[in-house]
Amino acid sequence: MADQYAQSGEDKPSTGIPVIRWEEPPEGPVVVLLDQTRLPAEEVELVCTDAPALVDAIRTLAVRGAPLLGIAGAYGVALAAARGFDVEEAAVALAGARPTAVNLSVGVRRAASAHRAALAGGAGAESAAKAALAAARQLHREDAEASGRMAAHGLALLDELLPGGGHRILTHCNTGSLVSGGAGTAFAVALAAHRQGRLRRLWVDETRPLLQGARLTAYEAARSGMAYTLLTDNAAGSLFAAGEVDAVLIGADRIAADGSVANKVGSYPLAVLARYHHVPFIVVAPVTTVDPDTPDGASIEVEQRPGYEVTEVAAPNVPVTGAGGGVPVAPLGTQAYNPAFDVTPPELVTAIVTEEGAVSPVTAEALAEMCARSPQATID
Amino acid sequence: MADQYAQSGEDKPSTGIPVIRWEEPPEGPVVVLLDQTRLPAEEVELVCTDAPALVDAIRTLAVRGAPLLGIAGAYGVALAAARGFDVEEAAVALAGARPTAVNLSVGVRRAASAHRAALAGGAGAESAAKAALAAARQLHREDAEASGRMAAHGLALLDELLPGGGHRILTHCNTGSLVSGGAGTAFAVALAAHRQGRLRRLWVDETRPLLQGARLTAYEAARSGMAYTLLTDNAAGSLFAAGEVDAVLIGADRIAADGSVANKVGSYPLAVLARYHHVPFIVVAPVTTVDPDTPDGASIEVEQRPGYEVTEVAAPNVPVTGAGGGVPVAPLGTQAYNPAFDVTPPELVTAIVTEEGAVSPVTAEALAEMCARSPQATID
Repeated sequence: MADQYAQSGEDKPSTGIPVIRWEEPPEGPVVVLLDQTRLPAEEVELVCTDAPALVDAIRTLAVRGAPLLGIAGAYGVALAAARGFDVEEAAVALAGARPTAVNLSVGVRRAASAHRAALAGGAGAESAAKAALAAARQLHREDAEASGRMAAHGLALLDELLPGGGHRILTHCNTGSLVSGGAGTAFAVALAAHRQGRLRRLWVDETRPLLQGARLTAYEAARSGMAYTLLTDNAAGSLFAAGEVDAVLIGADRIAADGSVANKVGSYPLAVLARYHHVPFIVVAPVTTVDPDTPDGASIEVEQRPGYEVTEVAAPNVPVTGAGGGVPVAPLGTQAYNPAFDVTPPELVTAIVTEEGAVSPVTAEALAEMCARSPQATID
Repeated sequence: MADQYAQSGEDKPSTGIPVIRWEEPPEGPVVVLLDQTRLPAEEVELVCTDAPALVDAIRTLAVRGAPLLGIAGAYGVALAAARGFDVEEAAVALAGARPTAVNLSVGVRRAASAHRAALAGGAGAESAAKAALAAARQLHREDAEASGRMAAHGLALLDELLPGGGHRILTHCNTGSLVSGGAGTAFAVALAAHRQGRLRRLWVDETRPLLQGARLTAYEAARSGMAYTLLTDNAAGSLFAAGEVDAVLIGADRIAADGSVANKVGSYPLAVLARYHHVPFIVVAPVTTVDPDTPDGASIEVEQRPGYEVTEVAAPNVPVTGAGGGVPVAPLGTQAYNPAFDVTPPELVTAIVTEEGAVSPVTAEALAEMCARSPQATID
């Protein structure tokens, strides 16, 4: 079950937004999430006392973003263990809450493996639960560190590709501290450029249908003091045509072994525009996003989301009138095509940046080699 | 001044939606418009008793769409004349209400020229006003006829390009009977295909920020009984990649002499996607949209609209909280880049279809030759 209480943002550290944390109040352990569906109007936390509540939070996008989903999945397993629920059952439900982000199942597996290993080694339920929590905490910590390294590698690549500095970067969806234990993925690179005085402007795609760019990336950019400008996704073409985009930086939800990148719907059109305009298209994601078991783009399962996300507007604080809880903007009965992600083939990706470095051009061999350098690769 | 009253759609002919009409009640002549900002939730009419009210209706997009703007501009001149206002002043205000659609100033000019010619010929104020109204009515009638011819030429071209039939057509913004005296431009072609059983599906881009696709094209498609599916603008990339789009059909707000096409923002990215996927990109517009005085794409003035159209959601019947009258979806103070149009260069346009035929490939010479065939070309 989830419980909500409002919390002012004033007492939060200005360096970041606490998007997820483990707490142990007298009533028992909980996972506390920043409810991202309420941003930027309100900073409200969601308290999950069991794995089903966390599954709900993942499905409704209260918690979202590939790396953060992994952390949330791991804490969800730890929560089930600490509360005495069936851990294997919780792991299956958590891993299946959203199909496209590989990080979610990787995070779930890490905590579940730690729990299983502890039990197999003769530990009691309490010790095994502690092992699951330790695994979740380690993943959280590693993710924060990985953000820093992605930012450094990404900025070095940008400086190499664009020696003039004064970068004008276009980004899509939200890839900052709201999706990560640290500063994020693509957004972390832009933030690093900003902090070193080398970001001229961040162009923020609003990212329909759920407006993660308008609601979340603009919120993070404003908090960081960046020069940023919001645009509808379809206005990006005009910026490219006017020569106003130096590079596209996006995250990823799953990267196939051949370098095909599944990311928020709208990424692929940007890749085609970037290619047409000879602008670098750079993907930033942790090594855990690369899934060696998915051979190519065609093998990536793309989540189809409900049509009401398109046929209704779900603005914060809008009275509910439609079936999906929003205000209808299309005639009743209108069918919508609403894939959550699209797939960009490796030939349109200039570089993939992870915490282990950058791969460019993107080939299956170079990607596998970079991933093999990561300690993550040998964990499972 | 404008006055509003609700009117049920039940008593309207099913073949079309009366989007504009001239009426002469005892209180004096008026121009009655269907308020397109209220669709699809409500069918409300807006009664304009003078040219400034019509200028407001044009600016707020209560009346919109290139051909219809021309008709509205002409009726606005006739209204000023019939009500005894300064006709030349009204003409300047009407023509300047929106800068990109050339049809608006062409329509204004036709009615104003007729008025001026009547006065010069010794007519009194009343006769001159009648001459302006006759010019407006003739434009209205010609536009309706032009729709039918564009539909026939467009369908012939589609059948030639896609001999298999079963067309899956992607369209952007709204180009149907809501923008025209007849069945419209691009939408009229899709409607003709539908009526002959050759339309498999109409893919409707929602068209951010003002959702003309979701609100208006879906409304027209539903009324016509077409198989249609709504999508966010950025999901079009996935449809192209999956081979689900046989042709793109769009309208135009201004076509430069070299064949560059200014149309609703988001058209250019579709043109780039269409090229990348070898899909025909077809522009349908009346001859009046071609502006021989605009030599090329760079010479087209693109209207920049207020940022609140992007930073706020203006869903029908939503309580007003933002500066633009909507619900904020981005942090306060967020700047937005909000061009109303973008420009597609002729090399990305497979064909331009007008009531005089189709031009393909698009060259300045072929375009000029087609326009010269039109009686429109010699009117001014």
